[in-house]
Amino acid sequence: MPTPAHATGTTLTIDLDAVVANYRTLCDIAPGAECAGVVKADGYGTGAAPIVRALSAAGCKTFFVAHLGEALAIRHTAPDATIAVLNGAAPGAEAEFAEHDLVPVLNSLEAVAAWTAQSVEDGTRLPAILHVDTGMSRLGLSDAELDWVADDRTLLDGIEIRWLMSHLAVAEEPGHPLNAEQRARFEAARKRLPALPASLANSSGIFLGADYHYELVRPGAALYGVNPRPGSENVMRHVVKLEAPILQLRSIDSPRTVGYGATHGVTGITKIATIPVGYADGYLRSLSNRGHAFLGDHKVPVVGRVSMDLITLDVTAVPDAIAHPGAMVEMISERYSVDEIGADAGTMGYEILTSLGARYARHYTGAGA
Amino acid sequence: MPTPAHATGTTLTIDLDAVVANYRTLCDIAPGAECAGVVKADGYGTGAAPIVRALSAAGCKTFFVAHLGEALAIRHTAPDATIAVLNGAAPGAEAEFAEHDLVPVLNSLEAVAAWTAQSVEDGTRLPAILHVDTGMSRLGLSDAELDWVADDRTLLDGIEIRWLMSHLAVAEEPGHPLNAEQRARFEAARKRLPALPASLANSSGIFLGADYHYELVRPGAALYGVNPRPGSENVMRHVVKLEAPILQLRSIDSPRTVGYGATHGVTGITKIATIPVGYADGYLRSLSNRGHAFLGDHKVPVVGRVSMDLITLDVTAVPDAIAHPGAMVEMISERYSVDEIGADAGTMGYEILTSLGARYARHYTGAGA
Repeated sequence: MPTPAHATGTTLTIDLDAVVANYRTLCDIAPGAECAGVVKADGYGTGAAPIVRALSAAGCKTFFVAHLGEALAIRHTAPDATIAVLNGAAPGAEAEFAEHDLVPVLNSLEAVAAWTAQSVEDGTRLPAILHVDTGMSRLGLSDAELDWVADDRTLLDGIEIRWLMSHLAVAEEPGHPLNAEQRARFEAARKRLPALPASLANSSGIFLGADYHYELVRPGAALYGVNPRPGSENVMRHVVKLEAPILQLRSIDSPRTVGYGATHGVTGITKIATIPVGYADGYLRSLSNRGHAFLGDHKVPVVGRVSMDLITLDVTAVPDAIAHPGAMVEMISERYSVDEIGADAGTMGYEILTSLGARYARHYTGAGA
Repeated sequence: MPTPAHATGTTLTIDLDAVVANYRTLCDIAPGAECAGVVKADGYGTGAAPIVRALSAAGCKTFFVAHLGEALAIRHTAPDATIAVLNGAAPGAEAEFAEHDLVPVLNSLEAVAAWTAQSVEDGTRLPAILHVDTGMSRLGLSDAELDWVADDRTLLDGIEIRWLMSHLAVAEEPGHPLNAEQRARFEAARKRLPALPASLANSSGIFLGADYHYELVRPGAALYGVNPRPGSENVMRHVVKLEAPILQLRSIDSPRTVGYGATHGVTGITKIATIPVGYADGYLRSLSNRGHAFLGDHKVPVVGRVSMDLITLDVTAVPDAIAHPGAMVEMISERYSVDEIGADAGTMGYEILTSLGARYARHYTGAGA
């Protein structure tokens, strides 16, 4: 339910130039591979359609989503693109996939059989991506299913496998032994199957080196500014900016507590600014007494619990000329990145992005906006 | 972006009969007061319009939202109801409030003055709710502002104050001294102002006794099944049911890890079920290795990290006849309430509700569905 900007005064700005710059950076790091764009979860909370439009204009030809509904929502935005659906086709949804020229990720032999049957019905070899599990234990062919296909390659004859893919579990930790193990399993699977273009790397995987690039890389988080190399300098540009007005200022001069549960006590003279953003807007409740924001050049802490529709900031140190009702507070920006907020919230930047709320007025700037 | 049910197979069912039953329970506990319905944050994530429709049919005449946009979204659903906006009117939005017959909560003297000016312009005394802060340190008149109004009651002459309100900070802890302190401050404020109907109690406040009821009670969370008395038996009916299909089963017979970060290791023979619900759907990432679900009568734990679009459950103990692809798993229900999930996630039921995702197929059952 998007609301008019004046309803909350809160604005979420998505910098499409930054998304495109991030896409180009990733392309440059994997020069031998095609670079897809992962736009599931409504473009990691930033809005799939504008992202697809901007990336298409930048030359991106392949997009990944999680669900059929997400694919249908962007089909008309990128009519010539390959749109792949990571969760595959639910039993019975194959005809709809074929009708809209969608490419299912085949995660099991049952899915291979159902897509083969659809191909027979349509009188063509329909395109697909074959997923082998190398260490997530989640989706994709199991070792036993891989054996079946390796022993009887005719199982794949009725469909067109565009790529063989797998998914990395710990790519953001370059030193973790599971990366090399997964790559070795992926190599073993490739050798046992017909020669196929391959895809292994997510955002962080792209930074593991050329051995991980194969023919297609599939960045998601890094496009949206998440640091694909935690602990190292972020080479991605920040994409998301959230700004909200001070709704009210409270000057306190006698002992009081702030917010639900009375978790923050005030004794001396204190100025509290109330901001119309809360956990119902995806400003996670775990940021209670932990998050911060910027008011002008002043870093101001979240005090008290995050409530459903409001947070409270201690702005005592900020001059009245800057801290006044209507003044805009920077909640998410380059100065307080989604990665930093994620860490403060006990999670990571991905969840900060996908939680971005529906009550913000959204603005897109830059390419294709 | 609601998607067709077949896209994910995941269904969120909202029991409107339970909401209405909860409303009646709350009315019965506060027989001398009018009982409003708080439907901010899109009806605490359950869908404001169907809730308003069901509660209106049950006799509810007053609704509270947080933002103007939320008020406009339900204005046509309850054309004769009082719709109050807790965050008040942003400067300049007063005319729109008056045009749509919305009642702002006046949180400051500036807001009183602006609403008075609008009343003059419209040639009538426009209705409002006057909010005095008694312990949240968030919104509402400060002590100093209360002094002003008490000293010059003519400040309120140009508008129609329907209710004097305040908001409790720790009502869910009946023994907390702040409850009595807030009530005492509220009583003191009432005595200093013209005689006005009053409103203090939220869901938990209703259970603090008749002294807290006044003329209007304002339950939100309890309507949606959240226990207003944590630690005591929940007298509210559960409202929300989330069911999702098993997308894929993975039998593991050699040592492997499950999910991102390889946080869950498997050694013996294990069956992992992958479910198309993730943190992008509001299944909080803090439920990684902590949440659970029900498959038939079997309680099955979340193993590994919650990922963006998927979770993994250990279903080793469940017979194959029950644990099969397509079988429906109960993710939220009476057996695993929003309160319990909230506790497991390190938060509370409120945040589980307001995080309910946009990719579920939503069904409403019962009254007015």
